[in-house]
Amino acid sequence: MALRLPGFLVIAALLGTTGAAAQETQPTPLQRRYQSTVDRIIALALSDSSAYQRLGELVDKFGHRLSGSESLERAITWVRDRMLEDKLDNVRIEPVMVPHWVRGKESAGLVEPRAAPLAMLGLGGSVGTPAGGITAEVLVVNSFDELHTMGDRARGKIVLFDYPFPTNVPAFVGYGRAVRYRVFGAIEASKAGAVASLIRSVASNSIRSPHTGVMRYDSLVTPVPAAALSVEDAMMLHRMQDRGEKIVVHLEMEAQTLPDAKSGNVMGEIQGSQQPNQVVVLGGHIDSWDVGQGAMDDAGGVVAAWEAVRLLKRLGLKPRRTVRVVGWTNEENGLRGGLAYRDAHQAEDHVLAIESDAGAFSPLGVGFEGTPEGLATITEIGAMLRAIGSDRVTPIAGEADISPLKEIGVPTMGLDTDDRRYFWYHHSQGDMLDKLDPAEVTRCAATMAVMAYVVADMETRLPRAGAGK
Amino acid sequence: MALRLPGFLVIAALLGTTGAAAQETQPTPLQRRYQSTVDRIIALALSDSSAYQRLGELVDKFGHRLSGSESLERAITWVRDRMLEDKLDNVRIEPVMVPHWVRGKESAGLVEPRAAPLAMLGLGGSVGTPAGGITAEVLVVNSFDELHTMGDRARGKIVLFDYPFPTNVPAFVGYGRAVRYRVFGAIEASKAGAVASLIRSVASNSIRSPHTGVMRYDSLVTPVPAAALSVEDAMMLHRMQDRGEKIVVHLEMEAQTLPDAKSGNVMGEIQGSQQPNQVVVLGGHIDSWDVGQGAMDDAGGVVAAWEAVRLLKRLGLKPRRTVRVVGWTNEENGLRGGLAYRDAHQAEDHVLAIESDAGAFSPLGVGFEGTPEGLATITEIGAMLRAIGSDRVTPIAGEADISPLKEIGVPTMGLDTDDRRYFWYHHSQGDMLDKLDPAEVTRCAATMAVMAYVVADMETRLPRAGAGK
Repeated sequence: MALRLPGFLVIAALLGTTGAAAQETQPTPLQRRYQSTVDRIIALALSDSSAYQRLGELVDKFGHRLSGSESLERAITWVRDRMLEDKLDNVRIEPVMVPHWVRGKESAGLVEPRAAPLAMLGLGGSVGTPAGGITAEVLVVNSFDELHTMGDRARGKIVLFDYPFPTNVPAFVGYGRAVRYRVFGAIEASKAGAVASLIRSVASNSIRSPHTGVMRYDSLVTPVPAAALSVEDAMMLHRMQDRGEKIVVHLEMEAQTLPDAKSGNVMGEIQGSQQPNQVVVLGGHIDSWDVGQGAMDDAGGVVAAWEAVRLLKRLGLKPRRTVRVVGWTNEENGLRGGLAYRDAHQAEDHVLAIESDAGAFSPLGVGFEGTPEGLATITEIGAMLRAIGSDRVTPIAGEADISPLKEIGVPTMGLDTDDRRYFWYHHSQGDMLDKLDPAEVTRCAATMAVMAYVVADMETRLPRAGAGK
Repeated sequence: MALRLPGFLVIAALLGTTGAAAQETQPTPLQRRYQSTVDRIIALALSDSSAYQRLGELVDKFGHRLSGSESLERAITWVRDRMLEDKLDNVRIEPVMVPHWVRGKESAGLVEPRAAPLAMLGLGGSVGTPAGGITAEVLVVNSFDELHTMGDRARGKIVLFDYPFPTNVPAFVGYGRAVRYRVFGAIEASKAGAVASLIRSVASNSIRSPHTGVMRYDSLVTPVPAAALSVEDAMMLHRMQDRGEKIVVHLEMEAQTLPDAKSGNVMGEIQGSQQPNQVVVLGGHIDSWDVGQGAMDDAGGVVAAWEAVRLLKRLGLKPRRTVRVVGWTNEENGLRGGLAYRDAHQAEDHVLAIESDAGAFSPLGVGFEGTPEGLATITEIGAMLRAIGSDRVTPIAGEADISPLKEIGVPTMGLDTDDRRYFWYHHSQGDMLDKLDPAEVTRCAATMAVMAYVVADMETRLPRAGAGK
């Protein structure tokens, strides 16, 4: 659940305090020092599509990678082995215990006003239905507010939250509004006496493709099964209710949560030549939901970060500080990887944490959170990326896996990309390799390589931020 | 399988012979006679969304409507009953025997290099697999030409035709090129010794949504099962082959063709006040594939044509000739409805046949095939639709159900719409009501109403075309 800025704030930021450096025609000392190296990094990145080839191998070989699954652990081991072949330093898997939710068989079917299957996906973390399923009348509401006006009408029913994904705002802003129903729907439905909770999939386009994602329970409220219908099915049920028809649905889910499973954060690095204990960490999350290939979310982010480090290695660049690539585990349903990474690396001094988890689409630039001086420096570095169009710098970095580091004062950076189609595929069967483009993944890798390298090598370290939220 | 013109030919047609009338600033006598009536039709159409309401009832109440299914017959009866309530003349269902193909259970799964389900839909008319299914190695080819260079390599294998939908040409031109693999793939695969035929879905966008559609066998070639994979799955298998991996797929299909079933063309009319035996027929097809709701393909066309006649009825307009709306049956896998209609109505004199089967999206105008004089008249009528943007007239009308009438010399007309998203949803689970827009369906109805009314009422009858292909 990343937070991003509306476009007008981005524009204001560029025109305002942070825009000065980006608009300079005279290079700054930092730019004079690094522009030729930046150009070499970009040139090497654009010379082949090795990142995309590796991404394709990863997702085709292992498919999706839910926490607790064998495919996740096999993928992590494969990444480690390839990192060893890349001759990165200190390649390792650091153990992390992760939640182990399994979907099992599941289905939803319309019983009245006519029998028909519904396109659905259970939500991650949901309990199952009793054996044989639940058959109940459906109450469709637009929002929590509407449910709260219903008094006893939801009692014994299945509540369907039909909240449309707002498409008149930036993609992640729309997501932030709609995803509340996925996360909190089961709690609110149960409080109202419902026996199950359905949502309209949190998606900005649909070809009857349901979208899963994490949901929560409140320990003081009876847990009820929770699933997403496709946008089309949710709209159909809403129309039926508007016509005064009685709607009955049969829901059957075997979902259950097993004891925590073994997993790990996989990582490798280029050790710093002068301050090896100062670290620029960059990565994405290696786990995914159990649908599609988790290519966009987030194998592409892991591979772009990994490729960034490989680019530095191939160019023989040895930055002053350590540059480390990490594939964090369990971002999707626990954040255990990001938390474990922070706890395991307290003794180190993290200079910057970078993540790509908004899809390795055409990169627009980066979001940065740190001090104003740090933002000015990042804006200077960003300006050197103008040749590949990823020179925009904004003051928001909302990525999840690096948020535990942000909490202890580490400056953080998210890769900003053209996310217009992100929620077409997010957490759906459609998240497969073809949704990403080789040239775009390459430019993501180049952008992360430049940011990581310059910050790791420049004489003055990036200032620490105050400990944040 | 409609044929449409590339854009440059459309532009040439507008600037050339047929463009003169459309560019007139002085109204022609025909336009002086009819413009105010046209404006009344448009105004009434735009005054409510009754067409969309009725369309929603139809598709939500009955769902998809494959030939031979109970849902198709119930939908046909419902349309007849509503037409009686509308007090149309001569409301009836004319019996038609239709092919009865049933899908049964089906699945495809990757066996090697790893086990994973594949998103698939069997193709309409396919035979099933033997009980227990077929497990065989997969050979991926780009085209028939590539298959023909393979010698014996397809023997005993499953052939996958991975032909991408061309997206750099108009939608129906791209469809025409790609659909050959759906229609003829099983014949070519079988000739090469394959045990089954798979295609990349014929679709211009995908969220792992497979697309079905009709396929053919050649009585001299062993029939093999045929199915479509989602675009994503076809691309994944192709990548695996490119990496030199052995691909094994398990395919299981219960598909079978049962004896022909009873169905019918449903129709109603406004009887002509002076030449009732001269008929302007307009409609769409009431059958659909057995996925989604068949809302775009083609309940929307049926309802737009029906609403067109209702608009004339509500305005109390009584044209000189008969205006008849028909919901043809079995367009998708047999064209039996269109053929039976022609055969049953030999005694009548059809002045014009209109169909909407490219999706009731924003109407751009009409395609017309008849004589040059007829085209000039239609262009004059088209110009009166400028207020709702559907004034374009092109010289191609490729709709299927009216093609049997075209063969006997009846001028034909297809409604042209903004079809850019048509093949996102076509023959997939995604073809549900929300893909159409109330205001757009309304403008489709208005366009058809104007064309039907003026042609049915004008003093001079539209000239017959020569008997065509």
